[in-house]
Amino acid sequence: MDPQSMGRGWPPLPLFLPFGGGGDTVKPAMDRMPVDGAAVPAGPPVEDPSTPFRLSQEARSLNRSLMRRLIAVTARPEIISFAGGLPAPELLPVEELSVCLARVLADDGPRALQYGPPLPALQEEIAAMMAGRGAGVSPEQVFITSGCQQGLQIAAHLLLDPDSAVVLDRFIFPGVRQAFGGWWRELREVPTDVTLGLDLEMLAAALTGPPRPRALVVVPAFHNPLGTTLAPAARQTVVELAGAAGVPIVEDDPYSGLQFAGPVPVPLVGLAPGQTLYLGSFSKLVAPALRLGWIIAPVALEEKLRVIKESFDLETSGLVQRAAAAFLRAGYLEPHLARVRVAYGQRLRCMTAALARHFPPGTRWSEPAGGMFLWVELPEGLDTLALLAPAIEAGVAYIPGAAFTGAGPTSAMRLNFSNATPESIETGVRILGGMLREQHSGATNRGG
Amino acid sequence: MDPQSMGRGWPPLPLFLPFGGGGDTVKPAMDRMPVDGAAVPAGPPVEDPSTPFRLSQEARSLNRSLMRRLIAVTARPEIISFAGGLPAPELLPVEELSVCLARVLADDGPRALQYGPPLPALQEEIAAMMAGRGAGVSPEQVFITSGCQQGLQIAAHLLLDPDSAVVLDRFIFPGVRQAFGGWWRELREVPTDVTLGLDLEMLAAALTGPPRPRALVVVPAFHNPLGTTLAPAARQTVVELAGAAGVPIVEDDPYSGLQFAGPVPVPLVGLAPGQTLYLGSFSKLVAPALRLGWIIAPVALEEKLRVIKESFDLETSGLVQRAAAAFLRAGYLEPHLARVRVAYGQRLRCMTAALARHFPPGTRWSEPAGGMFLWVELPEGLDTLALLAPAIEAGVAYIPGAAFTGAGPTSAMRLNFSNATPESIETGVRILGGMLREQHSGATNRGG
Repeated sequence: MDPQSMGRGWPPLPLFLPFGGGGDTVKPAMDRMPVDGAAVPAGPPVEDPSTPFRLSQEARSLNRSLMRRLIAVTARPEIISFAGGLPAPELLPVEELSVCLARVLADDGPRALQYGPPLPALQEEIAAMMAGRGAGVSPEQVFITSGCQQGLQIAAHLLLDPDSAVVLDRFIFPGVRQAFGGWWRELREVPTDVTLGLDLEMLAAALTGPPRPRALVVVPAFHNPLGTTLAPAARQTVVELAGAAGVPIVEDDPYSGLQFAGPVPVPLVGLAPGQTLYLGSFSKLVAPALRLGWIIAPVALEEKLRVIKESFDLETSGLVQRAAAAFLRAGYLEPHLARVRVAYGQRLRCMTAALARHFPPGTRWSEPAGGMFLWVELPEGLDTLALLAPAIEAGVAYIPGAAFTGAGPTSAMRLNFSNATPESIETGVRILGGMLREQHSGATNRGG
Repeated sequence: MDPQSMGRGWPPLPLFLPFGGGGDTVKPAMDRMPVDGAAVPAGPPVEDPSTPFRLSQEARSLNRSLMRRLIAVTARPEIISFAGGLPAPELLPVEELSVCLARVLADDGPRALQYGPPLPALQEEIAAMMAGRGAGVSPEQVFITSGCQQGLQIAAHLLLDPDSAVVLDRFIFPGVRQAFGGWWRELREVPTDVTLGLDLEMLAAALTGPPRPRALVVVPAFHNPLGTTLAPAARQTVVELAGAAGVPIVEDDPYSGLQFAGPVPVPLVGLAPGQTLYLGSFSKLVAPALRLGWIIAPVALEEKLRVIKESFDLETSGLVQRAAAAFLRAGYLEPHLARVRVAYGQRLRCMTAALARHFPPGTRWSEPAGGMFLWVELPEGLDTLALLAPAIEAGVAYIPGAAFTGAGPTSAMRLNFSNATPESIETGVRILGGMLREQHSGATNRGG
């Protein structure tokens, strides 16, 4: 097959939803909203004589992801949200972090509030964590970031020119498209299977097709949005294909640690450290508000990673770095993760049981062994984008599959199972299922 | 004059210093160091067959600023550092922030650790601060950032295409060049005067010369590195010139609040809110490790600012936002700033008195009315870049003028007066002065 054609040839995406802003001018119309910015072509520059602000091509083409926009909607307490990627609030380690912050300020005083280099104690703790995941790395290979999204941006700035090609999943977290897309870049999409993950045959074609891609982005564990995990053999194949093609791997791995059904296979960076940038994060493992993550990279790249990060935000908070190091050193992480794993496993089982009871016949879903996300494919003919507004009206939010692809509308949706309680999960799935069954039988009747 | 030629025609900068890394390949030579990344032309792509990492043009051309690199050197306790832009450690509000963090976690619990939208309470507090600075803005105009450097990057991504022109001071904080330079952009430099600041005649030429610039970057108060403050009349002229030329202003203002000699004039955003992006920060006012700042912008730009910020780091820590809002609401800021102003004023007077005693005759310096930085022009023939290594050897660090310009070597240096104690300031200036007098008389003797 011709890899150039992958991800093309789909019908055009309905670009606008009935809520939210976006748009090409400095006065965005608040009644329309692009689903995925990277897929929206830039309009012509709009010259508004009432303002000197002329927007860059990037600013005109970049639009807020539906997912981020839904965070505000779903913060409303009357909404049952399966939309965001939010940890269970009841399990956030408030007490432990409070103790760590107080201790760090008492012990380190002004040093904890000052500018400073990356914290060696944290680099060491993260290297030890990585060893536990099967990747032996030195503390010098640990580069501190302000979270995984910043890791994606740093990787993109490190590796991509304005016209580079990037290989990535057809369905992927929109932040990946925001960071790696834009300019004249080619986002070369590889199909994914709901149970196996990346289609390895298509991956081989995408990696070798001209022009040579400058990066392969992989989410091997508890994929967002699919929930899939690449098996050990598939991981070996991915690194071999990428190595043979001379394409560096960007391994986005914010969910490892959240496994509830057996161990996570060794990460790609453990299999091929010389060809992988690994991105980790404490957002899902400890707390989003830490805004703390890391990159594992060959030491030779540290200097360039550092200057790119400096140009973004100078450095990551030394106070937060110290608090996280104290949290890890105190041994708070493992008991916390143990609680989280049990809870998330229960919530997923609750959700799939409810799906089986309430969703239309013919619905399929992935089988996550960890993480936060379940991918649900509805029977053909149900457009999850069109159904979102009535669903929110009915009190339940999810993310339509179209938010994760530049390729076209889908009958799929992403359901988060970490944030809502088991009771709310049952209620929310029941409400959604009732709505979908009604739509489905309506569609079938009209069709028949 | 032809504004296209401004900032050109200087002799080439000696690009490498005898310590530190940088360089064009993925295996940077650690024994050389570019002074200012944005001024270093990109080398040809280096293809290293031992690694699949091919660096972007941006990563190859961007190099760490001397200033940031010196932070590690100057963290050594035996060095008296006038190099960094670090607040006085003794004055950092450790106790107050400790109280605020504990209170926020006790009161808000999991909400303080979760993802969430920008905090209205903080936006309101910042709007009130801005009113105190003479700029009436609504809370909706306050856009929360992870510090001023991120504000610069967001402004650059909002306004600039790869080939845009930007007008800025000839001597400027290197982070401005890192954010606004790169690709094929033109950094159109305007000369600055040590006492008055921006040369307004040259500014007029730079703003109107083709191509029309996409932004004017101004640091109107306690300029970094010059220490100058634009007078009210000059501010009025700047906004009129920019308005007439249709060029939006990026007002970088992290030091307002640190005045110790009279009030700060109304910021440009107070004079021309429709044509200004104003960047503020808590790094110098409260603590660098908060990594918290803000942009004041027309409300119509909020949507675009938001998506650009999301593509960088999703959002700024809700925990830090809450702690800062609590700090401001508790009234901790003003008493803290009162202490800081007294101390910084004393330290500056101590430094200029020591300069008068110890530095070579013919030395001139700026007259900061606030902030952290003093600009010192040595007699011609003294190259501050060449003298840095021996100065550090002798136990004193500063930043050579060349670090702040893409234009050429200088006999100037930036001295920070906020971080060292008065005793260390006297000692450090005496050591530096002795070295400089020796060099100066040597140069004079060789010349005569």
